[in-house]
Amino acid sequence: MAQYYSRRNLNFLLYEVFNATELTHYPYYSAHDRETFDMTIDAVTQIGDTIMFPHFRDLDRNQPELKNGKVTVHPKVGEYLKAMGDAGLIGTGFSFEDGGQQLPEIVNSILGFILMAANNGMMYTGLTSGAARLIASFASEELKQTYVEKMLGGKWQGTMALTEPQAGSSLSDITTSATPQADGSYRIKGQKVFISAGDHDQCENIIHLMLARIDGAPKGTKGISLFIVPKYRLDGTENDVTSTGIYHKLGQRGVPAMHLTMGDRDDCHGWLVGEPHRGLNYMFQMMNEARIGVGMTGVAIASAAYGASLQYAKERPQSRRLNEKSALDSPQIPIIQHPDVKRMLLLQKAIVEGSLSLLMETARCTDIAHASEDPEEKEKYHLMLELLTPVAKTYPTEMGMVAVSNGLQVLGGYGFTEDFPLEQLYRDIRITPIYEGTTGIQSQDLLGRKMTMKGGKPAQYLFGEVAKTIAEAENHETLKPYAQKLKAELARLQEVTMALMPFAMQGDIERFLMDATLYMEMFGISTVAWQWLKQAVVAQRTIVTQNPDGEELAFYEGKIHTMKFFFHYEVPKTLGLAVRLKDNEVLTIATEKEVIL
Amino acid sequence: MAQYYSRRNLNFLLYEVFNATELTHYPYYSAHDRETFDMTIDAVTQIGDTIMFPHFRDLDRNQPELKNGKVTVHPKVGEYLKAMGDAGLIGTGFSFEDGGQQLPEIVNSILGFILMAANNGMMYTGLTSGAARLIASFASEELKQTYVEKMLGGKWQGTMALTEPQAGSSLSDITTSATPQADGSYRIKGQKVFISAGDHDQCENIIHLMLARIDGAPKGTKGISLFIVPKYRLDGTENDVTSTGIYHKLGQRGVPAMHLTMGDRDDCHGWLVGEPHRGLNYMFQMMNEARIGVGMTGVAIASAAYGASLQYAKERPQSRRLNEKSALDSPQIPIIQHPDVKRMLLLQKAIVEGSLSLLMETARCTDIAHASEDPEEKEKYHLMLELLTPVAKTYPTEMGMVAVSNGLQVLGGYGFTEDFPLEQLYRDIRITPIYEGTTGIQSQDLLGRKMTMKGGKPAQYLFGEVAKTIAEAENHETLKPYAQKLKAELARLQEVTMALMPFAMQGDIERFLMDATLYMEMFGISTVAWQWLKQAVVAQRTIVTQNPDGEELAFYEGKIHTMKFFFHYEVPKTLGLAVRLKDNEVLTIATEKEVIL
Repeated sequence: MAQYYSRRNLNFLLYEVFNATELTHYPYYSAHDRETFDMTIDAVTQIGDTIMFPHFRDLDRNQPELKNGKVTVHPKVGEYLKAMGDAGLIGTGFSFEDGGQQLPEIVNSILGFILMAANNGMMYTGLTSGAARLIASFASEELKQTYVEKMLGGKWQGTMALTEPQAGSSLSDITTSATPQADGSYRIKGQKVFISAGDHDQCENIIHLMLARIDGAPKGTKGISLFIVPKYRLDGTENDVTSTGIYHKLGQRGVPAMHLTMGDRDDCHGWLVGEPHRGLNYMFQMMNEARIGVGMTGVAIASAAYGASLQYAKERPQSRRLNEKSALDSPQIPIIQHPDVKRMLLLQKAIVEGSLSLLMETARCTDIAHASEDPEEKEKYHLMLELLTPVAKTYPTEMGMVAVSNGLQVLGGYGFTEDFPLEQLYRDIRITPIYEGTTGIQSQDLLGRKMTMKGGKPAQYLFGEVAKTIAEAENHETLKPYAQKLKAELARLQEVTMALMPFAMQGDIERFLMDATLYMEMFGISTVAWQWLKQAVVAQRTIVTQNPDGEELAFYEGKIHTMKFFFHYEVPKTLGLAVRLKDNEVLTIATEKEVIL
Repeated sequence: MAQYYSRRNLNFLLYEVFNATELTHYPYYSAHDRETFDMTIDAVTQIGDTIMFPHFRDLDRNQPELKNGKVTVHPKVGEYLKAMGDAGLIGTGFSFEDGGQQLPEIVNSILGFILMAANNGMMYTGLTSGAARLIASFASEELKQTYVEKMLGGKWQGTMALTEPQAGSSLSDITTSATPQADGSYRIKGQKVFISAGDHDQCENIIHLMLARIDGAPKGTKGISLFIVPKYRLDGTENDVTSTGIYHKLGQRGVPAMHLTMGDRDDCHGWLVGEPHRGLNYMFQMMNEARIGVGMTGVAIASAAYGASLQYAKERPQSRRLNEKSALDSPQIPIIQHPDVKRMLLLQKAIVEGSLSLLMETARCTDIAHASEDPEEKEKYHLMLELLTPVAKTYPTEMGMVAVSNGLQVLGGYGFTEDFPLEQLYRDIRITPIYEGTTGIQSQDLLGRKMTMKGGKPAQYLFGEVAKTIAEAENHETLKPYAQKLKAELARLQEVTMALMPFAMQGDIERFLMDATLYMEMFGISTVAWQWLKQAVVAQRTIVTQNPDGEELAFYEGKIHTMKFFFHYEVPKTLGLAVRLKDNEVLTIATEKEVIL
């Protein structure tokens, strides 16, 4: 059986690179230690091994169906929800007060990584926890009491109901309406599309966290409110939420994406979460977590693909070494020994383990920003979190697609068949650079908002951290050249940023952000290069101080080797990106006289 | 209805850039003129519009099935084969003598482009024509008389039966055996996998062109012979070819990929094509054409995706211009007006029209090499064909995948659903960098064989042609900067090549070819940059000399605009590639002490 994730690597990142146990010095996380972290990881891996991974293909082959207004999904989903709910694993990131385990996000998000690597078609619990978190954070005590426990218990499914047919990336154009009633509730009318897990038969109720406009609300994003809209009201009556359609999708087929219609019979009740018109604010406070979640899904799928292609490459004999082509009497060699195959495997390892490291770095910022009692530290990590989030959503998903495609290529013609999981992983991962804000939207967020926030403070903090890693790497003779390279990357990135800022100052936002996606690509490469150098420093230090041997030595040497791979194969891409980003030729901004496309 | 290909662009390339009618000055093509070219293109487009494009999804949704040893495919396949056969469109590239239309390959390959853009799941005729071409070129007169006409008439399906379970990229390891019989035929025994159209119910017979070893043949590639192995023998009896399995695939689901077993009852008859042990030679003489065909499939799929995403981008309103974000009272704008979407569309156009141009350039080399009576000219174009073929197979398929993925991204969440064709195109194109030799194999062919062939003569010829385009571009003020850029690219490519050659001379082939895939990427970008400059020269000259207006002017300006896009966004990638390729760090060659992956 191929490995869907490497526990050794996870332990390395969690305990050796990010010292997650240090977080337990903060009072908020003080109930935890390595043992509680490991126990939770064990529990989730157990569910992954038994209920999820073995049914990876089966969920894809037996898609959800909408018949007579009812949605049926694979029965394993029910088993999964029960196991997760019973073990208290849906709300691991919630506070004790809200019925959770108060785990730091660096551990909590890793649990999502394991689950999604095992079977990303079972993304139900992530949606529930996101929805419940909105209720726990912003709703009245009464609503919290009513909903959170059932949701974290796996009995009630949560959803995020934002998108409408005419309002996808442009949430300001939402038109679903909410009319106030005498009893304090609202009547909801409108349509929502692409609602993941928006209806299914493996739970007792569906709780939509839905954006809508209260009658007479201001236009745009400042007039959007957040509502709880259940499928069944508390008295058990149906709440006039109709499953109008089900999308048939390229991937992630285990979970239904629904088209929902509210208020066909003018009887759809909704309950306001928090204050009117603050719905998008609430959403955005949860957004960092949701985006880290999608980044985790990207790297998780890439991790499963890496595991499967690595196993294949070790077992599949084909051809002979290039320097021994004519030795026809000798047996064929495993393809992992061909440089081009080794390159595709190293590329996958570099993307998977580099992305995971970046996501854990970002999650750690969440934790310190949340738990720290020092206002300066709190602000620093909060701003770094803001800056890193769009990158942590984008690099693992965009480059995750590249990794999976390389994994498929390793298998040649077999990779294209349904006999191996690669073709499904290739389909599944394609949604990740789209949902929770496309790569284009993330890139505008990075350059347009996060780089200009507070006079550039977030970037200053981040580059300060990178500089620390560079200084550490300079202590090791073998790492010095890479420290120099990273320093040069940082300078290049700053040069590019400086070249773009004048457009922002002139208020020409369109010109400023015209190539934001390329800026994102460059920023992502530099950030992951930093993560690789960070890992290499720990590996090198461990080799020197602890003198490991056998598989352990090979593990640490593999880390340094992959760091080198990243710097020699991936980092040079920034040369071309910088040239383009500093170049003044404008080719994509709409002009009066359009060229024919 | 979205456009699956642009006829205006096709005419531009065929008649304005490549002056295809000039080929009719060669005696071999002298029966043709623009009218016969256009008539054939019209006829094929008619079939594309009526029988193929409307059933694009249907073929995918109703996959071939193997039941009780019989394979059923979509009935439209039969209609398609009949239409193509009746109109004489399967053997358009064959000589009059062999029952074809003796069309130059530059036109013939374009027909494949149109067909595959309309519906790449109907790839049946390309396979038949490839198989029939082998018979026409190398088999005895008797075998020719028996098979070719029926095949070109669409009644008998042809296949290329090379791959075996243990021999994919490594054809030297083929084990299917052929035992000579008293009557001159052979008994075939073995297994073949991934045989496209290897069995189906919409034709009267299946004719396999099969590689096998005659008993006692030498090991390796020098002991492989080519056989005709029909499903039914001429007397109508079954020929002991069993459909053992059918592969379920990620894409191109309209055509079955078969696992075949020959000789289960020791009664599988085969007839030798040409001489014993020369099978792989024969195959390779047809390989250039087959590889151009796969390149065409790649660009065809990308063309359909570009058409679909362009239409969507013009029609879908979403958000407002970045400089007018707060104008909430103004309507949403079509997304084509957003720079990031425009960038994704221009990238697709640059890849599609640049790749098509490269493929036509390559096909033109075939034509001159074939038709010329001047030995020097013949050699020149033959060597250029040899060099360009792996690039023309790889760039359009690898970058075609990038183009289709960008097309899908343009549609956001909708691109991920089965309501639009992007998801299918995304699946379909994934096989193209795999079959007919993977990208890794093509890259080794380019650097390892073609660049070192005859002391580098092919590259000298090619660079000579590029220099001509540069000189022409220098005559136009607006194109001068791009002429300079291309000159620099050529120098960079030569520098990289020089840095690698010493390894070849030392006989360290593994080191020489270690990063051949990156060399291919660089070579492809430079070659397509040349094609874009070539197109821009024609466009600029036409604007100056013919003073077009309206849509015509916009068309030519669009060409120059896209050329600029290619040079500003794609060409800078070679900077990073060159750094890597000249770098001496070896990270992918197998060593005694392996790192842990």
